[in-house]
Amino acid sequence: MTQKIARFFEEQRPQTPCLVIDLDVVEQNYNDLHDALPDARIFYAVKANPAAEILSLLARLGSAFDCASVPEIQMALAAGATPDRISFGNTIKKESDIRRAFELGVRLFAFDSEPELEKIERAAPGARVFCRILTSGEGAEWPLSRKFGCDLAMARALLLKARDMDVQPYGVSFHVGSQQKDLMQWDHAIFQVAQLFRELEVLGVDLGMINLGGGFPTRYRTDVPECTAYGQAIFDSLRTHFGNHLPETIVEPGRGMVGSAGIIESEVVLVSRKSAEDPKRWVYLDIGKFGGLAETMDEAIQYPIEVLGDEQAGDGQDGDREAVILAGPTCDSADVLYERADYKMPMGLKAGDRVRIHATGAYTTTYSAVCFNGFEPLKHYCI
Amino acid sequence: MTQKIARFFEEQRPQTPCLVIDLDVVEQNYNDLHDALPDARIFYAVKANPAAEILSLLARLGSAFDCASVPEIQMALAAGATPDRISFGNTIKKESDIRRAFELGVRLFAFDSEPELEKIERAAPGARVFCRILTSGEGAEWPLSRKFGCDLAMARALLLKARDMDVQPYGVSFHVGSQQKDLMQWDHAIFQVAQLFRELEVLGVDLGMINLGGGFPTRYRTDVPECTAYGQAIFDSLRTHFGNHLPETIVEPGRGMVGSAGIIESEVVLVSRKSAEDPKRWVYLDIGKFGGLAETMDEAIQYPIEVLGDEQAGDGQDGDREAVILAGPTCDSADVLYERADYKMPMGLKAGDRVRIHATGAYTTTYSAVCFNGFEPLKHYCI
Repeated sequence: MTQKIARFFEEQRPQTPCLVIDLDVVEQNYNDLHDALPDARIFYAVKANPAAEILSLLARLGSAFDCASVPEIQMALAAGATPDRISFGNTIKKESDIRRAFELGVRLFAFDSEPELEKIERAAPGARVFCRILTSGEGAEWPLSRKFGCDLAMARALLLKARDMDVQPYGVSFHVGSQQKDLMQWDHAIFQVAQLFRELEVLGVDLGMINLGGGFPTRYRTDVPECTAYGQAIFDSLRTHFGNHLPETIVEPGRGMVGSAGIIESEVVLVSRKSAEDPKRWVYLDIGKFGGLAETMDEAIQYPIEVLGDEQAGDGQDGDREAVILAGPTCDSADVLYERADYKMPMGLKAGDRVRIHATGAYTTTYSAVCFNGFEPLKHYCI
Repeated sequence: MTQKIARFFEEQRPQTPCLVIDLDVVEQNYNDLHDALPDARIFYAVKANPAAEILSLLARLGSAFDCASVPEIQMALAAGATPDRISFGNTIKKESDIRRAFELGVRLFAFDSEPELEKIERAAPGARVFCRILTSGEGAEWPLSRKFGCDLAMARALLLKARDMDVQPYGVSFHVGSQQKDLMQWDHAIFQVAQLFRELEVLGVDLGMINLGGGFPTRYRTDVPECTAYGQAIFDSLRTHFGNHLPETIVEPGRGMVGSAGIIESEVVLVSRKSAEDPKRWVYLDIGKFGGLAETMDEAIQYPIEVLGDEQAGDGQDGDREAVILAGPTCDSADVLYERADYKMPMGLKAGDRVRIHATGAYTTTYSAVCFNGFEPLKHYCI
């Protein structure tokens, strides 16, 4: 909780629910990541939070942008990024969208399959392409499916094929999974990529770039390694597996860039029990799974939640706090935030009290539904 | 697939993804439900699809409306419903929203806890209230949590308390779970409600209304009982448990009213494998979990999906069709629609082909995210 955000809530008393982003924290996160990985180019993952103020700030700081769609490319351009600082990082693109991106000046495209490579050759001739490989995703809090990437043999075959096409085989990308806390996951992936580089070099394909993806965490309810620890681990792996011939490196932080910069304020709508003997209270907030907190799915991301005026907060003691189930305001029974996760709140909690949901700067506003149950999408303020 | 929708797609060739609703099907569903349950008042669950054309049609047909929020109440009023045809059916309401609904003329409110009852007394004095009880939700395809309702003992105590408050204890509601295919679930609940009515009658509280909730299904990949079977089962239960003193009944269909009226058309963006030996193809559509198909969560709702131009479709044979994994277009690895469900598609399927996702009239448009990954919310057309 920064002083700037505290003052904003106090002076503006905004309607809940709303998200407030402290741009100074975004700037600090950018600088920390840049210091931790001084040789890597930072491509901010726009999907994490595409607020214009965030994009403008990062463009000014020198960041590049990882975009998932044409509208995200247009947002990055509008924020002041030049096309050479934009990567179309989605491996699933309509050919018409590749063409549009190419017309807008974008020259860097991701792929993980032969049809996608052929689309890029047709719609963006001469462009640089990088192939995404599958990783296990072990150790990540937000689940990685096998949706993106291909296996190493296919990546080798596709990059070799690209050599003889009207595209420039440029590099390899991977993603260790979002909110990744196991530093060794980068080492496993970098080891595989280094092998691939050597195999392809023998075949006459000189790759220049390794895209380390995202995965840099935000501190939620438990500690995460420092940014510098990630930087050191990645640098050590690159040295170990590439020796003195270090490739160009790219990182794509999203959560790690903006997660810690935001706080959602929400109002308690109801506190109740299902029966006289019910051991747990149900606490219903005016924000839920469909209002921006989609990452509570399967209770994967557990945000720190603070009850305003809870004087015992932060003393590490439960005091008069007891277990609660947290749910959203919609008539959808799937709109339950935390039932198994062990959240505790004061016994005196009642409708009208306010809570602050910390570390909600990433993957909240854009996840919110257009008007499910008639509720408006999550409002936000960048200060 | 109605002829009207087929002609619309053929003549308009709308950009994908989009949802097309045939209003004639909505009208037919309304009439069928009305015929099946001639004594019940129909309160359409606005949250299922709040398109203005649907609300106007239903208002004209005589439907009442179950609303989850003040904006939904305003939509129902704008569509021509009078306030006496509106129920504020969410058991989780801000006191300011109860007051606003009361000012708009609404006099029927749901509750399932003491604090909510007290809010209603303060903000909507004299209003009719009904208490929602917990049911097991067994047999329902879309999961019911314990989020709504209280146990019978608490319902009895609260309705008794309401007698001495400035509200009118009016009835009891339950919900057997969405997409409920076990007709006996209504009987279990009606039996419990009848007991509650008798117990309260002895204590001087005369309840007049039983709200049977929703749960009426849409046909997805498997057959569901006919509307008339639901009507007969419910009528029989009411007769069995209430004898000749039948209470007023209310039903709140959402899915059963509009689900079968809509079809989404979507474009295949990519068909690929993860390795040369990958036994299943991945088929990526331009709509996914965050673009309107949220009910694919845990593969709960399995929509029938038709590939355009698949000449073998509907012959019950697999022909050259083989298993696929279906996923959405975003860079989110949770955006996978069906991995375990056994969907098969033609071997010749390729990017640019179109698919039609049937029975998508309910719980799609309003679930879609505002702009996740830069993708626009689901467009829709009512014809």
